[in-house]
Amino acid sequence: MRFSAFSVGRKTALHSSEGFQPLLFDTVFVNPDGHFDLVAGHFVAPLRGLYFFSLNVHSWNFKETYVHVVHNEEAAVILYAQPSDRSIMQSQSVMLALAPGDRVWVRLFKRERENAVYSDDVDTYITFSGHLIKPEDD
Amino acid sequence: MRFSAFSVGRKTALHSSEGFQPLLFDTVFVNPDGHFDLVAGHFVAPLRGLYFFSLNVHSWNFKETYVHVVHNEEAAVILYAQPSDRSIMQSQSVMLALAPGDRVWVRLFKRERENAVYSDDVDTYITFSGHLIKPEDD
Amino acid sequence: MRFSAFSVGRKTALHSSEGFQPLLFDTVFVNPDGHFDLVAGHFVAPLRGLYFFSLNVHSWNFKETYVHVVHNEEAAVILYAQPSDRSIMQSQSVMLALAPGDRVWVRLFKRERENAVYSDDVDTYITFSGHLIKPEDD
Repeated sequence: MRFSAFSVGRKTALHSSEGFQPLLFDTVFVNPDGHFDLVAGHFVAPLRGLYFFSLNVHSWNFKETYVHVVHNEEAAVILYAQPSDRSIMQSQSVMLALAPGDRVWVRLFKRERENAVYSDDVDTYITFSGHLIKPEDD
Repeated sequence: MRFSAFSVGRKTALHSSEGFQPLLFDTVFVNPDGHFDLVAGHFVAPLRGLYFFSLNVHSWNFKETYVHVVHNEEAAVILYAQPSDRSIMQSQSVMLALAPGDRVWVRLFKRERENAVYSDDVDTYITFSGHLIKPEDD
Repeated sequence: MRFSAFSVGRKTALHSSEGFQPLLFDTVFVNPDGHFDLVAGHFVAPLRGLYFFSLNVHSWNFKETYVHVVHNEEAAVILYAQPSDRSIMQSQSVMLALAPGDRVWVRLFKRERENAVYSDDVDTYITFSGHLIKPEDD
């Protein structure tokens, strides 16, 4: 059975910088074949097909939450929340058609206004999961 | 392999009207066999089985977010947020047992109080994805 | 085809007590082989493999939303929102590697501060779904 799946988490916060930056992950729930590259923060598609992705982050008080799920270098969908004094979960999901070697990753927006995502070392607030729904030539 | 999947987005806002109205989608991420009918805004099940659906919308400032995931004409689950001056992502997901021809769609509630969902032409805030988990007679 | 899936909902609110408590579910969307134990509030894995879980709850005004997705007795991921006068949807998802008999369930945090999740008998606000992504020895 052709197969690909990963689920990773992040236990530390991340603040926006002057440029775009990848959201890196420090916690592995499942990554059986290593298709999620923890160093780059990228899922790399092993074969052509349709993949489902699900992202959950936690907002940081008084800052925007401003991230994209990115396909290679192009933003596929946004996950955005206006700033507030209340921190909450924020989620997005999408299915994408990928070619072998295509990368899917999470990108924190650059600092036009300050934005950030929250997590801590006790609990995993930030998660990113994906898996192959269907190889193309089945 | 029997298979069905779709993932669509919406890049424009929608406000409630006097009646119920379907949330229509203008952006296709994947819809390989056209099981998602973009004109009607309905996923139409091609075969009997279990399907997973995932919905993400963005709230509109000072208005309610009041939508349902609907199975044929019956609301399966609600996605609801009280109004506020902060726009955020809101999500819901569910698995449903469908017969061939069953429709699953997203419905904006009618105007008892004003409600709306936000998106814009730069980023895709609103997404709706679904796929077959298991054909019934496997 | 080896297979496992469930999707359940809850139509009543739940408030925190002195101890941890499982979030029980009163509504079944799909549970074809009964792998979700409604009495215990646990999904019980029928076979070794990777499973995807998706949780959506609704916050209760002026109370925290403080729940975990739990693997056996260990919290895998948190779903948390600070208290506010605005009730909203809150979501989390994760993939886990399970052994036969492993349990995955949703746990309301104990009362250090009051926390709660909201639902009502008209609409299903709270949903918990999961399914087998891949049996281990495929």
